[in-house]
Amino acid sequence: MGKKLVLAFSGGLDTSFCVKYLKEEKGFEVYTAIANTGGFSSDELKIIEEKAYRLGAKEHVTLDVTGEYYEKCIRYMVYGNVLRNNTYPVSVSSERVFQAIATIEYAKKIGASYIAHGSTGAGNDQVRFDLTFQVLAPEIEIITPTRDLMLSRQEEIDFLKKYGVEDDFEKMQYSINQGIWGTSVGGKETLTSDKGLPNEAFPSQLKTESEKNIELGFEKGELKTINGKSYDNGPATIQALEEIASEYAIGRDIHVGDTIIGIKGRVGFEAAAPLIIIKAHHLLEKHTLTKWQAYWKEQLANWYGMFLHEAMYQEPVMRNIETFLEATQENVTGKVFVKLLPYRFELQGIESEHDLMKSGFGDYGETVNEWSAEDIKGFTNIMANSLKIYHKVNNKI
Amino acid sequence: MGKKLVLAFSGGLDTSFCVKYLKEEKGFEVYTAIANTGGFSSDELKIIEEKAYRLGAKEHVTLDVTGEYYEKCIRYMVYGNVLRNNTYPVSVSSERVFQAIATIEYAKKIGASYIAHGSTGAGNDQVRFDLTFQVLAPEIEIITPTRDLMLSRQEEIDFLKKYGVEDDFEKMQYSINQGIWGTSVGGKETLTSDKGLPNEAFPSQLKTESEKNIELGFEKGELKTINGKSYDNGPATIQALEEIASEYAIGRDIHVGDTIIGIKGRVGFEAAAPLIIIKAHHLLEKHTLTKWQAYWKEQLANWYGMFLHEAMYQEPVMRNIETFLEATQENVTGKVFVKLLPYRFELQGIESEHDLMKSGFGDYGETVNEWSAEDIKGFTNIMANSLKIYHKVNNKI
Amino acid sequence: MGKKLVLAFSGGLDTSFCVKYLKEEKGFEVYTAIANTGGFSSDELKIIEEKAYRLGAKEHVTLDVTGEYYEKCIRYMVYGNVLRNNTYPVSVSSERVFQAIATIEYAKKIGASYIAHGSTGAGNDQVRFDLTFQVLAPEIEIITPTRDLMLSRQEEIDFLKKYGVEDDFEKMQYSINQGIWGTSVGGKETLTSDKGLPNEAFPSQLKTESEKNIELGFEKGELKTINGKSYDNGPATIQALEEIASEYAIGRDIHVGDTIIGIKGRVGFEAAAPLIIIKAHHLLEKHTLTKWQAYWKEQLANWYGMFLHEAMYQEPVMRNIETFLEATQENVTGKVFVKLLPYRFELQGIESEHDLMKSGFGDYGETVNEWSAEDIKGFTNIMANSLKIYHKVNNKI
Amino acid sequence: MGKKLVLAFSGGLDTSFCVKYLKEEKGFEVYTAIANTGGFSSDELKIIEEKAYRLGAKEHVTLDVTGEYYEKCIRYMVYGNVLRNNTYPVSVSSERVFQAIATIEYAKKIGASYIAHGSTGAGNDQVRFDLTFQVLAPEIEIITPTRDLMLSRQEEIDFLKKYGVEDDFEKMQYSINQGIWGTSVGGKETLTSDKGLPNEAFPSQLKTESEKNIELGFEKGELKTINGKSYDNGPATIQALEEIASEYAIGRDIHVGDTIIGIKGRVGFEAAAPLIIIKAHHLLEKHTLTKWQAYWKEQLANWYGMFLHEAMYQEPVMRNIETFLEATQENVTGKVFVKLLPYRFELQGIESEHDLMKSGFGDYGETVNEWSAEDIKGFTNIMANSLKIYHKVNNKI
Repeated sequence: MGKKLVLAFSGGLDTSFCVKYLKEEKGFEVYTAIANTGGFSSDELKIIEEKAYRLGAKEHVTLDVTGEYYEKCIRYMVYGNVLRNNTYPVSVSSERVFQAIATIEYAKKIGASYIAHGSTGAGNDQVRFDLTFQVLAPEIEIITPTRDLMLSRQEEIDFLKKYGVEDDFEKMQYSINQGIWGTSVGGKETLTSDKGLPNEAFPSQLKTESEKNIELGFEKGELKTINGKSYDNGPATIQALEEIASEYAIGRDIHVGDTIIGIKGRVGFEAAAPLIIIKAHHLLEKHTLTKWQAYWKEQLANWYGMFLHEAMYQEPVMRNIETFLEATQENVTGKVFVKLLPYRFELQGIESEHDLMKSGFGDYGETVNEWSAEDIKGFTNIMANSLKIYHKVNNKI
Repeated sequence: MGKKLVLAFSGGLDTSFCVKYLKEEKGFEVYTAIANTGGFSSDELKIIEEKAYRLGAKEHVTLDVTGEYYEKCIRYMVYGNVLRNNTYPVSVSSERVFQAIATIEYAKKIGASYIAHGSTGAGNDQVRFDLTFQVLAPEIEIITPTRDLMLSRQEEIDFLKKYGVEDDFEKMQYSINQGIWGTSVGGKETLTSDKGLPNEAFPSQLKTESEKNIELGFEKGELKTINGKSYDNGPATIQALEEIASEYAIGRDIHVGDTIIGIKGRVGFEAAAPLIIIKAHHLLEKHTLTKWQAYWKEQLANWYGMFLHEAMYQEPVMRNIETFLEATQENVTGKVFVKLLPYRFELQGIESEHDLMKSGFGDYGETVNEWSAEDIKGFTNIMANSLKIYHKVNNKI
Repeated sequence: MGKKLVLAFSGGLDTSFCVKYLKEEKGFEVYTAIANTGGFSSDELKIIEEKAYRLGAKEHVTLDVTGEYYEKCIRYMVYGNVLRNNTYPVSVSSERVFQAIATIEYAKKIGASYIAHGSTGAGNDQVRFDLTFQVLAPEIEIITPTRDLMLSRQEEIDFLKKYGVEDDFEKMQYSINQGIWGTSVGGKETLTSDKGLPNEAFPSQLKTESEKNIELGFEKGELKTINGKSYDNGPATIQALEEIASEYAIGRDIHVGDTIIGIKGRVGFEAAAPLIIIKAHHLLEKHTLTKWQAYWKEQLANWYGMFLHEAMYQEPVMRNIETFLEATQENVTGKVFVKLLPYRFELQGIESEHDLMKSGFGDYGETVNEWSAEDIKGFTNIMANSLKIYHKVNNKI
Repeated sequence: MGKKLVLAFSGGLDTSFCVKYLKEEKGFEVYTAIANTGGFSSDELKIIEEKAYRLGAKEHVTLDVTGEYYEKCIRYMVYGNVLRNNTYPVSVSSERVFQAIATIEYAKKIGASYIAHGSTGAGNDQVRFDLTFQVLAPEIEIITPTRDLMLSRQEEIDFLKKYGVEDDFEKMQYSINQGIWGTSVGGKETLTSDKGLPNEAFPSQLKTESEKNIELGFEKGELKTINGKSYDNGPATIQALEEIASEYAIGRDIHVGDTIIGIKGRVGFEAAAPLIIIKAHHLLEKHTLTKWQAYWKEQLANWYGMFLHEAMYQEPVMRNIETFLEATQENVTGKVFVKLLPYRFELQGIESEHDLMKSGFGDYGETVNEWSAEDIKGFTNIMANSLKIYHKVNNKI
């Protein structure tokens, strides 16, 4: 038929409404697609699939883009130590873009003329979907019932009931988005400016009080081993670390920042593995990069994180920045020693053959042979030149 | 006489050696000066004074520059959320510069022809002293016995004994530098790359397990109240917070970074009040500054921290950056709610009449009246233009 | 009446159409306003006023904001040596914002409920008007007939004829926008990528072949005298210089850049005085600022120019940047010697009591007393440390 | 025997003195080496070689590094549109580094224990030589007679005469350094701040008054053809363009900037081909890069130019920046049309299949179909959000 439509489907209330509404009221042939970036288990995906068919999807597909998301995004966020506003590992934000890409590519593949998403009109996700869809397939029309109709939760439930759908759409106290690079937790306290989230709001709960020392092995900036053990691939390594670290309820915080649409947003998150990886990686860099490599990496990586967050992944400067970031990782190889404790972790130190501190060249604070007191005097004398001149010229007046 | 010399005196082994050596072997008239930036109590200062006279100082003076250090430096580090390498509040580094300034100004005042410091040839402090001295008084000759003679600890002790000085110069396991903006802890583990510091190495020890909620009041970027209580001045407020927070053994970490002389350095530190203030201030800024104010502040503040660390405080761009930072603080007024816990703290939230999140204008994730679905479609459509053009032009080939 | 509307009126075809259309077809009470930022003579303003009344304006007003535009904008562009894409002095772009501000403030003053502009839907000006209007008076509705109706030139002329308006709306080959900070020239060749504008397209024509030397006197970054002569105010000084320099047909170029709406734009311009002032000012800065002042000024000023161009003048970071730029100008005082020649100018040099080159301290390439060969050796030895370490550590593997 | 020394030899007075002095007074076995980066003709190199042997060189060698200099440096300066302080193409500065590299590598190859250069103690070149030598061969001792002895010109001449050397060492009015990427002209007027260089001081003189249109063909950022004609390699292409352009006496200016040793320096230069190439390349980029690619390129390229100038070529961040710059050039392919005129040139335009302006997508200032008036309204409405909120929140108080 002419009205082939692909819907980015998550199984939640909004997208369930969309399936029914688009099919029954608008006459679309609804193909549902869920793009998994590592946040869903196969059991969860199975339940979502069944729900899609129950709602009347013509066809449902699970697009596994975990590997692609890791290779094309997570990897660079690690190289860049990306923490938006010094806090947030750009968890859900960056996943959405890869979900959008997978969905629009599926739509192109099956020759759909329409693509739909269930985002509302007050958040970032709508922009991530719209923008990605438009850039990659300007010829496919975008349909956004949730945003256009501005229905309340209850109205959506009533609509579904009208069509005999009786799913359990009880509103959870918190809206949770689980992903491989962190889980976001929104609702209640995050709608205010002044309150933190209670422990119970977070997905992981403290399971142990005993300290644990772990050793993370990095190769050219990528986490490759945990306590010497290798895993199948990047995502598997992250998941293994998450399993260990989540027992300590590590990596919780609240992100406050600017949305793409200009308003401020506030959202809780838990991201044990991402935070440990980024901080450990950063420490390894402090030992293996020069001052100016670190300086420029930070500039570019901050921008990279901002553009990821703001749906600008397709901007070609992102590819250029990725090239830069990767080039800086040449010597970021070694082990990082991390101690896990309840609700926090400590970086103990690193070991690397590229460690610029263990050069045997002249160690900080120790007597050295590589330079003399005279060298330092010459150094500071010349270093002072521009300041001496400035103060001489401008104080005389 | 003609050989009037001012020595930056701390009472430690190196500067004790300097007094004796410069007086007895080099025939200088030694005026000792200690510049207090808030790290010494009056009792400690008294002991240092007595020691100076015992060693043979012609005159000893305590220069209190705590207020000046706060007004001309700490304040701006808070405005800038300055954490060198995302970790270190530039504690001791920034104090040294103000100690150097106070000492050279004293030397000029009393008409000394020579100025001396006891720093060795492998650290940052020698550059901070040399550079500051040279820029502010190029006519005064700099004398650095410790650096020039490269004596071992034992040789210095033997020298002092020769002159009958029998002070307790037992080498401590860690070299500790206490200041108002943090205490550095060096030695043993920090000389390696792979080991963390044990709890005992830090000046404060955990004294309580019970959580405590505190409220920090900021006015135009400056901490003014704690739990509603005002203090005499900036330094007093910091000290009050330090007293509360140090019971929780908060603010410990290890800084790894580049020294001014090009080698890597590693040093532990404890800075409970500074870290809480900076993180609380930063959170308040996330609510009260626009995205681009935050963006540019970060660039300039990072540079400010780097130049502070690297003895470049006299560079005129520092004054320009201070002007910028101060200008950004106009609306950074409000309360920040902080929870103290053993070894860590949590930021709960803020309250401010300048909170851009509580504008009543359109709240994140909620239904809004200020814009329509059509507006967002127009927004993303136009926002996509440059990307659409780029991909259209460059994929066709 | 309820339908009071202010129209930003220029006297051209688009805004003439708007007066008639809004009054006759839409029933608005049309108040026309022209905001002069220094580009119009009083004769030209008089003609525009007459035209407004002839078209049926209820009231016409000339808002002179030349002084404000100079104080709040041009001055900072000079401090910042602002040339968009290293070429364009952000001439018309920056004026539009001040015209928009003046117009919306007038609308608020007279209690209008509507504000209109005549910009089309493919350029930057529409955004400058819309954004400024919305931010400063969200309660006033924006009306944009030209953009909405998408009429052709001929359709607009026909409409006006229908109402008996027979003005001379002959399409000029080039669309010219004259302002105090430069004149833009668009059309014909600028619509292509490959052709330059012919001499005739530019407003000024070469009037003399004889060289002329002039002396520009700056005080704290502002041009204050020409050949020792003072003028009434900033705009008058610019106009005086323009008069001298335009005889040489100086300051022509083509700007290629990104529009606010994401497409590329290309426009010719002539800006003799702006280019001479900026280049002369920049040279004076090279002599009076330190390396790092120049470095950071450039970063911030580039951003300032971009945001000015992109209608973001109201963003508070702009105020912070202005504060920074002004702070850097403290010593930018002195004379600059410029030689004018046909189609170009040469900067000869400067004279300033703040000249860091004439410090008597150690002149470039000459024998010096302020430092020794040993100092330089020490300097380069220490400067080499980080590189030596890096290459030692990383080549051994 | 053991005193094998390599001297970076140019044939001028300073290095001629060095040969004689090092051989006769210091007993070194002097190997002279001249590294040609494209500035010397084979005739000139022959004369220099003869002079070296006449002075007593044990062996003389010409190291041709033109190709290496082009591939490893010029290419990136073009990609980056590098003009130090917006003026100077970092001509001689960047060549010195490659001359230093070639010389130290030659010294290593022949197993020399010493390396010498003839730079004085007041310029940049000494640092370029010292630093490069130290980093690449810390084991080879650096000998700098000219700097150490601080002899006057006449003393050097007298010394040479004593040894029977009667070369024509008449002091030229200007010191000229000819290179493939520009010729520097120092002396007389450049020692002041206020005077420009006369026409006669420059190497090329105006030879024609007639305009000439040329077409430059770029491929991925590199100049490959002139008027459709290909050349053997990068250096040959530059030389061909220089030949055409130097008849117009194009590309003269004076560079004022900061030296590595902290004093200000001023030097004239002529660089017709470099300036035309950089400006033409930059124009092609304005059509083929996105706004943010241009933005970040500028940041990194400015730094690259600064570090090249300051002898920091070996810093690893330079390799990372080169990677970035090269990545941005993917689509910088096309023709640039340039008109040559006496003392200046005009960029007419470009033609490229990657031209983002000729996308057929919506052209600047024209009626468009790709978006509607409503889209723009939505765009500006959302774009205004953050500003509306800021002004709403902060004006109410």
